[in-house]
Amino acid sequence: MCTAITYHTADHYFGRNLDLDFSYNETVTVTPRNYVFPMRKVDDLSTHYAIIGMSTVAGNYPLYYDAVNEKGLAMAGLNFEGNAYYFDDQEGKKNITSFELIPYILGTCQDLAEAKKELSEISISNEAFSKDFPLSTLHWMIADKTGAIVVESMKDGLHVYDNPVGVMTNNPPFPIMKFALNDYFALSAHHKEHTFGPGVELDEYSRGMGGLGLPGDLSSKSRFIRCVFTKFNSQGESDEVSSVNQFLKILYSVEQVKGLCEVTPGKYEYTIYSSCMNQEKGIYYYTTYENSDIHAIDMHKTDLDSSELSVYPLQRQLQIHLDN
Amino acid sequence: MCTAITYHTADHYFGRNLDLDFSYNETVTVTPRNYVFPMRKVDDLSTHYAIIGMSTVAGNYPLYYDAVNEKGLAMAGLNFEGNAYYFDDQEGKKNITSFELIPYILGTCQDLAEAKKELSEISISNEAFSKDFPLSTLHWMIADKTGAIVVESMKDGLHVYDNPVGVMTNNPPFPIMKFALNDYFALSAHHKEHTFGPGVELDEYSRGMGGLGLPGDLSSKSRFIRCVFTKFNSQGESDEVSSVNQFLKILYSVEQVKGLCEVTPGKYEYTIYSSCMNQEKGIYYYTTYENSDIHAIDMHKTDLDSSELSVYPLQRQLQIHLDN
Amino acid sequence: MCTAITYHTADHYFGRNLDLDFSYNETVTVTPRNYVFPMRKVDDLSTHYAIIGMSTVAGNYPLYYDAVNEKGLAMAGLNFEGNAYYFDDQEGKKNITSFELIPYILGTCQDLAEAKKELSEISISNEAFSKDFPLSTLHWMIADKTGAIVVESMKDGLHVYDNPVGVMTNNPPFPIMKFALNDYFALSAHHKEHTFGPGVELDEYSRGMGGLGLPGDLSSKSRFIRCVFTKFNSQGESDEVSSVNQFLKILYSVEQVKGLCEVTPGKYEYTIYSSCMNQEKGIYYYTTYENSDIHAIDMHKTDLDSSELSVYPLQRQLQIHLDN
Amino acid sequence: MCTAITYHTADHYFGRNLDLDFSYNETVTVTPRNYVFPMRKVDDLSTHYAIIGMSTVAGNYPLYYDAVNEKGLAMAGLNFEGNAYYFDDQEGKKNITSFELIPYILGTCQDLAEAKKELSEISISNEAFSKDFPLSTLHWMIADKTGAIVVESMKDGLHVYDNPVGVMTNNPPFPIMKFALNDYFALSAHHKEHTFGPGVELDEYSRGMGGLGLPGDLSSKSRFIRCVFTKFNSQGESDEVSSVNQFLKILYSVEQVKGLCEVTPGKYEYTIYSSCMNQEKGIYYYTTYENSDIHAIDMHKTDLDSSELSVYPLQRQLQIHLDN
Repeated sequence: MCTAITYHTADHYFGRNLDLDFSYNETVTVTPRNYVFPMRKVDDLSTHYAIIGMSTVAGNYPLYYDAVNEKGLAMAGLNFEGNAYYFDDQEGKKNITSFELIPYILGTCQDLAEAKKELSEISISNEAFSKDFPLSTLHWMIADKTGAIVVESMKDGLHVYDNPVGVMTNNPPFPIMKFALNDYFALSAHHKEHTFGPGVELDEYSRGMGGLGLPGDLSSKSRFIRCVFTKFNSQGESDEVSSVNQFLKILYSVEQVKGLCEVTPGKYEYTIYSSCMNQEKGIYYYTTYENSDIHAIDMHKTDLDSSELSVYPLQRQLQIHLDN
Repeated sequence: MCTAITYHTADHYFGRNLDLDFSYNETVTVTPRNYVFPMRKVDDLSTHYAIIGMSTVAGNYPLYYDAVNEKGLAMAGLNFEGNAYYFDDQEGKKNITSFELIPYILGTCQDLAEAKKELSEISISNEAFSKDFPLSTLHWMIADKTGAIVVESMKDGLHVYDNPVGVMTNNPPFPIMKFALNDYFALSAHHKEHTFGPGVELDEYSRGMGGLGLPGDLSSKSRFIRCVFTKFNSQGESDEVSSVNQFLKILYSVEQVKGLCEVTPGKYEYTIYSSCMNQEKGIYYYTTYENSDIHAIDMHKTDLDSSELSVYPLQRQLQIHLDN
Repeated sequence: MCTAITYHTADHYFGRNLDLDFSYNETVTVTPRNYVFPMRKVDDLSTHYAIIGMSTVAGNYPLYYDAVNEKGLAMAGLNFEGNAYYFDDQEGKKNITSFELIPYILGTCQDLAEAKKELSEISISNEAFSKDFPLSTLHWMIADKTGAIVVESMKDGLHVYDNPVGVMTNNPPFPIMKFALNDYFALSAHHKEHTFGPGVELDEYSRGMGGLGLPGDLSSKSRFIRCVFTKFNSQGESDEVSSVNQFLKILYSVEQVKGLCEVTPGKYEYTIYSSCMNQEKGIYYYTTYENSDIHAIDMHKTDLDSSELSVYPLQRQLQIHLDN
Repeated sequence: MCTAITYHTADHYFGRNLDLDFSYNETVTVTPRNYVFPMRKVDDLSTHYAIIGMSTVAGNYPLYYDAVNEKGLAMAGLNFEGNAYYFDDQEGKKNITSFELIPYILGTCQDLAEAKKELSEISISNEAFSKDFPLSTLHWMIADKTGAIVVESMKDGLHVYDNPVGVMTNNPPFPIMKFALNDYFALSAHHKEHTFGPGVELDEYSRGMGGLGLPGDLSSKSRFIRCVFTKFNSQGESDEVSSVNQFLKILYSVEQVKGLCEVTPGKYEYTIYSSCMNQEKGIYYYTTYENSDIHAIDMHKTDLDSSELSVYPLQRQLQIHLDN
C-alpha cells in the first residue's frame, strides 16, 4: 500500500512511498496562491497558501497524493480500505470531500495547530470527484516542524491522533497500529545481553542480531514497525543532499519490489514513486520505481502569485552514467 | 556484513552489497590479459582471462572484492568471520592465498565446471597480502550462467557446495544457512488460505500478509532469507536497464541503512556500495551509499590485451536532477 | 497473569488458569440460594441462584475468582492492570463494586441474555472490599451454552464485547487482542503448501511445521493466540472424563511454569490453579501447580437451599500412585 | 514427535514425551541382571546391569523407548526420520542393531564415559527386529549425572555430540538444532530494557514480554527451543515430589495436544506418555495423555537378580478425586 514518514536534520522533511498496482499519470504540481480551488460544500479558495506536491491533474484540478505548502505544513493521503468512512453532509460542520482535504488544509493552515482547529470543524464528505475518479478510501498524516498527526474518518466519526513516531502506513486504525510497536520494545540496533537462560552458552554469529524479530514482509503493520525502527535508529549527516539521501533510504527499507505483493492474479503492487519534501525550502524530490535518479522541483522557482498550475511530468527514464 | 546474488533475465547478472563500517578506497578495476598476477606459491599468471571488478589496488595489485571475467564467470568474497580457516602450505595441493583466489579462479577458469575442478586441487593458504592488509576471513560465491557454488575453507577443510538459490551472505556455514530457509516454506507473495482453526473468522486487513514471518533485521541469516524471498518472487522486464534496476532493488531489500547495525560503540556498518555485473557483456554497474546514481564501466571499452590495470574511482557525489 | 476458556463437547465447560506470584488461601466455595449477599449500593441479594466457584472467603463473604451458577451461567475475573477503571457512584446506574460483580451477575441472571441486560444498567464502583483487600484491576468473561462476552470497565465507560473465540487473557483491551489474531490466519494444524518461491526446493523436516509462527512465551497476547489455536484445533472425546482432561490440556498449553515470568526480582508468577466447571452439571474440577491430581466438588451434593457457605480447601498435596 | 530432557535438583532425572499417532501396548518393564539379552551380531548379554524403562515387550524381548540402569545411566530413542541411517555389517566394528542399542549401552556401561567408549566401537546395524517390527529411524540421548550426549547414525557415519543443554527432540541433526538456539540469545524470563529506538516510548503491557519471540508450535525445532528456555529458567524445590512435578511441567510445556499436529488426514500425533526417571533411585514415574495421575514403579522393589522381566501395564484410566 503506502508508507509516509517525517524526518529532520537541519531542516524538516516529509514524504512517502506510493505503493500501487497501477499508475495515474502523476505529476509534480505547483498550485500558486491565486489558483482558485473550487470547493463542493464550502466557499471556493480564491487565494490561499501556495502548494507543491504529487498529483493527478484532472480537468485542471490537482488531485494531490502528498504535498507541502509554502509555510512548511505537509500532508499525505494513504490507503485505508475497509476502515475509511465518509459521511453525508452534516449540519454545523464544514463538509469537505476526501479529495479536497489536502488542498483545504494546506491552503488555509500554516501549521499543525491551525490544522487541528480546522479538523475539529470538518466532516469528510462522501462525494466523489467524478465518475472517472471514484472515492479513494484514505487516511492522512499531517506534519509541520512541531510534530505529526493522523486523521482517520471512520464510521464512528473523525479521529485526530498525535503521531509521536511520524510514520504512517495503512490498516489497522492508528491506535491499534501504534500499540503493535510495544511488542518490539526489546529490539535494538546495538549489542544486547545474552539472557536466554543461566548456563546456556550461545554464539552471536552475526552483527545485527539485536534486531532479530523485526518483521520483513510488506503488509502494512510490518512496514510500519520496520520503518519506525529504521527511522529512529538511522544516523545521517545534516546537509541537504545527505538528508534527502538518508530520507529515501528509510523509505527504501520498506519499498515494495515488483512481484512480492500480488493484488489479483498476475497483478502486483509496487512502489510507484518515493517522495521527499523539504518543508522549509519548498523543494519536492522524488524517485520512481524505474528511475532511481533523484529529481527535484523547487516551488520558489515558479511564480507563486500566479493563478495557473505548474506541472512537471515524472522522469521515469533511468540514465545510467557511463564512466568509460 | 554483505549479500551477494545471481539473477538472470535475457543475460546473467552477479553482484553484491558490501556492508562494512569503513571504506578502503575501492575502485572499479579492469585487469587485462597480460597483466602479470604474481602468485605466492604457484606460478605467476602471466597471461589469463581479463577481469573487471571492485578492488582496492595496493602496490599495483588489485585486491578484488567481486569481479567477473571475460568468459562470464563471476566471483565475490564475503565476510565469514569465526568460521573461515586458512591453512599452512599443504603438500600435493595448489596453495592459493585468500586474496589470490579471485584472480586465480577468474584468471584461469572459463566456467563453473573448470572452477570446481581447480578448487578440488586447492588449499587456501594463510599467508597475508602484507602487514598493512591482514587476512580477511572470507567465503566465496562463484557463478556462471549454469549456476552458483559456495566455497568455504574451514578447520575441517575446503568445502564446495552447490548453491541452488544463488544468494550468499555471511555466517553460519552454508549448509546451516540453507537449512534455515525450510522454516519459511509456507510464506507467499500471493494470497493464502485462512487455516488458523475451524470457526475462527479472521480479517486479512492488508495486502502482503502472505509474507508475514519474513525476517526484517540485518543479521546475516535474516538477510539471506529475505533476499531469497525477494529474488525468487521478483518480477521484472528483461531489457538491460530494467534488469539492472530490478537487480539493485533485490539488493536494496537487504541494504544496511547507516545507524541500524552498531559494530563498536558509535561505529555503524552500512552498505558501502552495491554492484551488478552483466556476465555476458562484461559491464560493471554500481551505486554507493551516498550516491544512488547508477554508474557503469564496460571492460570491452578498455584494451583487454594490455598489461596495465585500468582504474575507475567510485563516483560518490550524488547529482540531484533539477527539473526547474 | 491468567487465561480463561470455554469449551464444549456433550456439555459446556468453563474455567481458567490463575497465574500469580502469591496465593490467597483459595477454596472451592458453594454459595446456596439463601445465603444473603450484602450489596454496597443496591439491595442485598437475600435469595438468588446458587453458585459454585473458587473464592477467598473473607469474613464469611466469598470473593469469587471464577464460578458457575445452577443455571449454567459462568464467569471469571482476570487481571486487567493499567486498563481497568472503576467509577464513583453514578446516578441512574446500578453501582456494583468490582468484587460484587460475579455474585450479582451469577446470582440474578440465568443466561447471557439476562447478563447483557443487567450490564447495560451497571456501573462498576470503585469501592474496595476492605483495607485488607484493595481493589483488583479486573475484566471479566461470562459464558453460557450460547456463547461468551467480555466485560471491560475503562475510563471511557463499560464495554461489553461478544467473544467469538471464548478465550480471554489480560491486556490489551479485547478489541486489540482479538485483532491480533488476524496475523496468524495462515497457521495450520494441517499440512500446508510450499509457497516460498517458484523454484526454491525446501524440506519440511518435521511434523507440525504448519504451526510455525505461533508464539510460545507467557505474555498475555501470546497466551491468547496460542490458546485460541490450541482450543480450535483440539480433538477430544465427548464423555465427561475425556472432556475435563482435554479442557485442562488446553489450559496447560499456556500454563506458567515457575521461574519463567519474573514479577519482581526473585518472585515469579506461575499457574496457582487450573479450573474446569461443567456448566450443566454444576461440578467444579481443579488442579493446582503442586498437585496434578484432578479434584472435583459437585454443588448438587450440597444443600442448595441453605444459607451457609460450603467451603472445600484446595488439595495441594500430590499423591503419587505406586504401582509396585 | 518426541522430547527428552535431563534435570537435576538433589537427584538427577531423565525422561521424555512420546509423541505419536498410535500406541504399541507400552509397559514399564524391569529387566533384571540375569535376563539374557540375545544379541544379533555380538555375544549375548547373559548378565548385565538391571534396567527399568518403557518398552513394548515382543516375544519376551523388551523393545525399550527410554530407560535407566541401576548405575544411573539413562537413555532414550527418539524419531529421527529422514536423517537416521543404519549400516550393513562393518568389519572391525561391534554391529549393534538399532533396537539393541539401549539394552547394550545400559546393560554394559555404568556411566557416560563408558558409553562414549563403547560407541566409538559401534556401528548401528540395519537389521530389523522382525517383520512385524520394522526399523525405527532413531537418534538417542544418553545421560548420567555428569552430562548428556546425542548419538546420531547418519549416512556419513556415527556421530556422538556433547549436549550441553540436556534437551533433544527430532530433526534436524543436533549441530543444526543446537545452532538454532543462538537466535534466541536475547530472550529472557526477566525484565528487559527498552531499546527499540531513542525517543520511542513503548508500553510493556504485560508480564512475560521478555520471552516474546519464543516459538509456540509443535515442530521439532520449536519444541527444542521452548523446552530449553523452560528448563533453564524453571525454578523448583529439590524434594522428590516437587522435582518430579517440575520435571513433568517442563515436559508439558511442549506437550502435543490431540488435534494440533495432523499426520495423515484425520490422524493426529499427541503425547502418548510422559516419563521421568530418578537416576539415583531407579524409580520410573509416568503419566499418560488420558491420565494425569502420576504413577511410579521402583526397580528396587523387584528382584534385580532374577532372569525374568517384570512388566507393569500403563494405567490409562483417569481417577477424579471427589471431594464431596
